[in-house]
Amino acid sequence: MAGRFITFEGPDGAGKTSVLSALIPIVEKHVAMPVTLTREPGGADISEKIRTLILDPANVAMDPRTEALLYAASRRQHLIEVIDPALAAGALVICDRFVDSSVAYQGGGRQIGEEAVLAMNHFATGGQGPELTVYLDIDSAAGLARIQAHQASRQYDRLDRESLAFHQRVRAAYLKLAKAEPARIKTVDASQPLEQVVAACAKVLAAHLGDSWQ
Amino acid sequence: MAGRFITFEGPDGAGKTSVLSALIPIVEKHVAMPVTLTREPGGADISEKIRTLILDPANVAMDPRTEALLYAASRRQHLIEVIDPALAAGALVICDRFVDSSVAYQGGGRQIGEEAVLAMNHFATGGQGPELTVYLDIDSAAGLARIQAHQASRQYDRLDRESLAFHQRVRAAYLKLAKAEPARIKTVDASQPLEQVVAACAKVLAAHLGDSWQ
Repeated sequence: MAGRFITFEGPDGAGKTSVLSALIPIVEKHVAMPVTLTREPGGADISEKIRTLILDPANVAMDPRTEALLYAASRRQHLIEVIDPALAAGALVICDRFVDSSVAYQGGGRQIGEEAVLAMNHFATGGQGPELTVYLDIDSAAGLARIQAHQASRQYDRLDRESLAFHQRVRAAYLKLAKAEPARIKTVDASQPLEQVVAACAKVLAAHLGDSWQ
Repeated sequence: MAGRFITFEGPDGAGKTSVLSALIPIVEKHVAMPVTLTREPGGADISEKIRTLILDPANVAMDPRTEALLYAASRRQHLIEVIDPALAAGALVICDRFVDSSVAYQGGGRQIGEEAVLAMNHFATGGQGPELTVYLDIDSAAGLARIQAHQASRQYDRLDRESLAFHQRVRAAYLKLAKAEPARIKTVDASQPLEQVVAACAKVLAAHLGDSWQ
């Protein structure tokens, strides 16, 4: 029995975490298969250790390519230890961020180049990827304002300290991806109130899953 | 002033460490520029942390591609923090292992495929590589016997526990590389007594460096 693989993407402040928290119970009501929500490192022990390295604010000297390679290493291990077994067990796997995040953040944001980051990630995934990606789009200034409002309740890591220009490059890379792969990537306006964003996401999933969404 | 970049490669038990210890003082006598001997992680703090992760015997569940990506991440950081500054300062940089090691160990030994590992490492190095590589060749069974003889004085890590078949694939990949790039890779018979191996290496360096070797 083969599962289904769907990812959620978006710049910082798009509200992915809140949207997914509200969305998962809805998905569970509408699909017959088990639903697995995960994100890197997602409980994979080695990925967790890699993640700690990447996000340590002490590592200010980390080169952008080193960072991209570490994300890809963490992704590989998460894929093998968490996603693949869930898919093999017939689950609907919903993953918070995947390769598109590296293309947008390291390729666009850190200006390594989207194609180079994509090709390197292909090594990590062996070409495996989501059948559907929901992209939560938000204006960069609005996204950053949301992050700052939640700063007290949130770990303040290296990526959060990037400039507005960085976040604008990230968003531009996401929009480019969405334009290049319209069949896979569906864009949802994340500036709307949470309830409406969740409803829009549910609609995208229902349309994609067809008979599997009842 | 631009430096020179030379690497040493070989399977486990080829005696790279002993050869380099004896060779460096000879090189220093014959070249006018400063000589920097380094190996990954080579004092780069982030690389050191990555290396600890890779070699931890507790990480038995590490996927071969995860391992290859982590080596590439460590290599990138070592290149940026250690090798490039030394080259910029005009040094002759001698590095114990570089991309060829990943091609041989992960590509050949772990059977990911040499070309895939090479392409992924190109992302890490930006195409930068040694002008000369000295490959210390030894029969796999002889190499493993040497490792076992030195086991007490040596950290017993994950890679050492691999089978003879693994080490034979590593050597085969090295021999393929040497055949494919005869202008860059010079093979030295490492089964000879140490003194002769060192003399053969010095001869290779002298021939390559020409007027810079006095």
